[in-house]
Amino acid sequence: MPNSVVDADVIFKELKTNSISEFFRKNSQMLGYSGKVRSLTTVVHEYVTNSLDACEEANILPEIIVEVKQIAESKYSVKVTDNGPGIPTKIMGRVLATVLSGTKFHRYMQQRGQQGIGGSGCTLFSLITTGKAIHVRSGTGRGAYECDLSIDIKSNRPLITNMVEIDKAFKGLEIYGEFGEVKYESSDHGIYEYLRRTALSNPHATIRLIDPEGKSFNFIRSVTEMPTRAKASKPHPLGIGTNDLLEFAHASESRKISSFLVETFSRLSQNKVEELKGIVGELDFDKDPRKLTWDEAEKLVNSFKQVKWIAPDLDSLSTIGKTQIEATIKNILNPQFMSITERKPKVFRGGIPFVVEAGIAYGGSAGKTTEVGSQGVLIRFANKVPLLFDGSVCAITSAVNDIQWKRYGIKEFDQEPISVMVNVSSVYVPYSGVGKQAISQEMEIIEEIKLAVMDCARGLQRYMSGQKNKSIQTSKYNTIMKYVSQLSENLSEITDLKKADIEKELKALIDSRYKKLLEVEAAEEAKAQEEAEGEEEEDVGSAEEE
Amino acid sequence: MPNSVVDADVIFKELKTNSISEFFRKNSQMLGYSGKVRSLTTVVHEYVTNSLDACEEANILPEIIVEVKQIAESKYSVKVTDNGPGIPTKIMGRVLATVLSGTKFHRYMQQRGQQGIGGSGCTLFSLITTGKAIHVRSGTGRGAYECDLSIDIKSNRPLITNMVEIDKAFKGLEIYGEFGEVKYESSDHGIYEYLRRTALSNPHATIRLIDPEGKSFNFIRSVTEMPTRAKASKPHPLGIGTNDLLEFAHASESRKISSFLVETFSRLSQNKVEELKGIVGELDFDKDPRKLTWDEAEKLVNSFKQVKWIAPDLDSLSTIGKTQIEATIKNILNPQFMSITERKPKVFRGGIPFVVEAGIAYGGSAGKTTEVGSQGVLIRFANKVPLLFDGSVCAITSAVNDIQWKRYGIKEFDQEPISVMVNVSSVYVPYSGVGKQAISQEMEIIEEIKLAVMDCARGLQRYMSGQKNKSIQTSKYNTIMKYVSQLSENLSEITDLKKADIEKELKALIDSRYKKLLEVEAAEEAKAQEEAEGEEEEDVGSAEEE
Repeated sequence: MPNSVVDADVIFKELKTNSISEFFRKNSQMLGYSGKVRSLTTVVHEYVTNSLDACEEANILPEIIVEVKQIAESKYSVKVTDNGPGIPTKIMGRVLATVLSGTKFHRYMQQRGQQGIGGSGCTLFSLITTGKAIHVRSGTGRGAYECDLSIDIKSNRPLITNMVEIDKAFKGLEIYGEFGEVKYESSDHGIYEYLRRTALSNPHATIRLIDPEGKSFNFIRSVTEMPTRAKASKPHPLGIGTNDLLEFAHASESRKISSFLVETFSRLSQNKVEELKGIVGELDFDKDPRKLTWDEAEKLVNSFKQVKWIAPDLDSLSTIGKTQIEATIKNILNPQFMSITERKPKVFRGGIPFVVEAGIAYGGSAGKTTEVGSQGVLIRFANKVPLLFDGSVCAITSAVNDIQWKRYGIKEFDQEPISVMVNVSSVYVPYSGVGKQAISQEMEIIEEIKLAVMDCARGLQRYMSGQKNKSIQTSKYNTIMKYVSQLSENLSEITDLKKADIEKELKALIDSRYKKLLEVEAAEEAKAQEEAEGEEEEDVGSAEEE
Repeated sequence: MPNSVVDADVIFKELKTNSISEFFRKNSQMLGYSGKVRSLTTVVHEYVTNSLDACEEANILPEIIVEVKQIAESKYSVKVTDNGPGIPTKIMGRVLATVLSGTKFHRYMQQRGQQGIGGSGCTLFSLITTGKAIHVRSGTGRGAYECDLSIDIKSNRPLITNMVEIDKAFKGLEIYGEFGEVKYESSDHGIYEYLRRTALSNPHATIRLIDPEGKSFNFIRSVTEMPTRAKASKPHPLGIGTNDLLEFAHASESRKISSFLVETFSRLSQNKVEELKGIVGELDFDKDPRKLTWDEAEKLVNSFKQVKWIAPDLDSLSTIGKTQIEATIKNILNPQFMSITERKPKVFRGGIPFVVEAGIAYGGSAGKTTEVGSQGVLIRFANKVPLLFDGSVCAITSAVNDIQWKRYGIKEFDQEPISVMVNVSSVYVPYSGVGKQAISQEMEIIEEIKLAVMDCARGLQRYMSGQKNKSIQTSKYNTIMKYVSQLSENLSEITDLKKADIEKELKALIDSRYKKLLEVEAAEEAKAQEEAEGEEEEDVGSAEEE
């Protein structure tokens, strides 16, 4: 055997370096391009997400038109037009045709897109399935142009061709692309459902879908106010690791570690620096931050954990909002009952702020009707973007499956006409994959989702037990009433009073007694509920009000 | 509102380009670094996979030692030593400290690692959780050295320090790294289970684990032959898309399209070129392949689909092998019954070859014992590498869940002492994520896994119904035997023969009759089985023997 051993030089001579474009060309399923229906939904998802983000930053109420046409078997065109700010000519190539370029991920701020992959991923997918470039028209108000855009896969660089100026009256962005290996379907994983859910979580947007048959579906905005603007903010000291701190320090322009800390982090005042000095021990806070070592940074991060902090700045979070969830659920599901909860913001991994909103709808168009009866439906969102795929690995699914639904008067989640919607918002959503279709199973996030959904479920429980009591009461009432006529007749014979009079009085008596009974029960229930809620209030974390 | 509209230039001024290292630094969960236990298993998985691949290429029977030590709370060191070919000095940085560099993915060949991410991912994870470099010792036989290795995240370039030559007697590779945010646990997702399963699918490897308590576990090789070597091969015409064909053409050194086709693809002879010419129509096969257009390439790819081809070359696939699976299942699970199937290679997406092996073990240490009784266990492999995570999105799980186990005499998969193992081998395994823990749900792969497992399940069914018949037969036999003694006594009284003689003869009679009965039944069953299998033989694809 030793004779046939192959030398390392031979083994490694075929080594090659891949560009990130090349990597995703070969693994496009990792970007969400797996399966024909999912692939088409992914394209629309990326473009609509970008449009919503851009409109939000530009402070424009979004109007988005999605037009899908079939070109051939398994080949469709997608055109997405928005009224947003447009994209300036010189950065077009980076935003839509360079993978990992054009990211704003370094900003500490909640946004739908994060990675600088989505839009360029579509351009790549168009190229590898049809060989075509995408066509873009953009108007920023000061000028407008159109061009063809593709990617040089080997170098991960944009290829821009046929650039021409157009009428500067055109304002916004229009992207047209052709895609192969795709299919339009009106299933739970299709574009219609995706846009319906997007409308649900973005009530300020008007979205129009023109499907391949030319049919038009309009999701009209239900509010005309922009959502509360998420602000870029400084990171919280509890949200960063040693490596993050080092990176900030080495890029800092501050002269001293002390001023670097104050300038870089939220909640970190000069007073806090003094406090930290007492804890860290051997560290020169006057030192150049660019010379901070790992050990020193580690000491600092450990000291952060020993200090009491005000909770993270929450301006960086933007929720859908209770009223708006209510309006859209009513609008879309028209349920018999609904209950909405917005939790207070929390942190995960020590200091990354996030907030969970949840809603439960019961009856009406809630849930899903199948051959075997009603079924629960889970509607997942992250930063207001619908998540249609990979539900089985998502923190939201875990949380909802963890709940003992029987406690809340629900047989099984998948046997009732119930829709549960959950939106997790954060400056950093820890997606489980590059395709951003599931939230990684972080314990703190799962716990918080559970609390939110359980809170809604308690509302549902009250409603269900009310329904149950009501039906018991009603049947008692009906039983008594059934005998009233007979009894009145008998009494009339004995007392010589008119049957009609006796019957009237008896009915009034029963009615008033029944009403009182209901009031007493309602009061008892309310009291029990209050007590139960009191017990469940839990600590917000190591937040301190200064 | 128009006054407050924000201009595109302002919006996009904060755009930034991320290096791929930076991207994975921020999204390390996508590489498998989520959760403390999983993160530590991921490190071992990456190093052991690389060692096995390198030994296989060098034709060396692998001996791998994995040593895990606890350094502090949530901080461990991992040292992996192998007897492989080592890594030449000048490419060390690319292999272990540059994300997406050092890939051999362009080769059309089955290998465990694929992407040029794993090893560098460990270096990155060590850096971001401990700030440390990894330490490498490597000997190629001609020379040996050691060095510290880290990544410059901003540029995705290696940082090599403290490089020194060492005694050239050292042969192989030793990697030592320290990792934070990790935890050693002996659960189903821990390192012990990972290595146990690796041993199961790599019976030619000897693997030793030294756990943080210093305890040593040895998985000794059960065979001393190298597995059949997977060969790099040319791609099959049915396995490529238009984009692939264009890429090959534009990089070709052939002078004509016709010679380019013959040289690039397997099964594509000059005769086939003539056949294609008749189908494609307007295309000059004497044209320079570097000038091939998308439309021409698309025509060619379509014409490929109209020709009959010999099935893809299978030298590029390497399986574990039926005998070896049997040996390791016996070794590790010692079941009452087992059934192994190796399917013939098939293709997915038109022409990418893959092959499925499956085994079922019943009884013994198969399955899992829980509080509520036995439970089925699914042991997943891709290219002989155990997949411990993300089972819920894996094609193997889907396939096994799709099977109607009741048909095979199994109550429910999760209520029996049963282990099902499946290994999918391919030159290109379509992983669902960068962390390579699940196989994307391609229909053709799912179908093939189902057929493999169902084949094993039929073996199990025969065994189960045999067990059942046997127990019915045995009880009949016992019932008859019970009366033999009484009957012999009565006959003895009537016939004046000795009771003992009568009893002896009667028992012999019953025994022989019972034996014959069993033989007849077994023959009938075998015949029925043969017929059933005949019906199930399905087509291998559009393969043609020339």
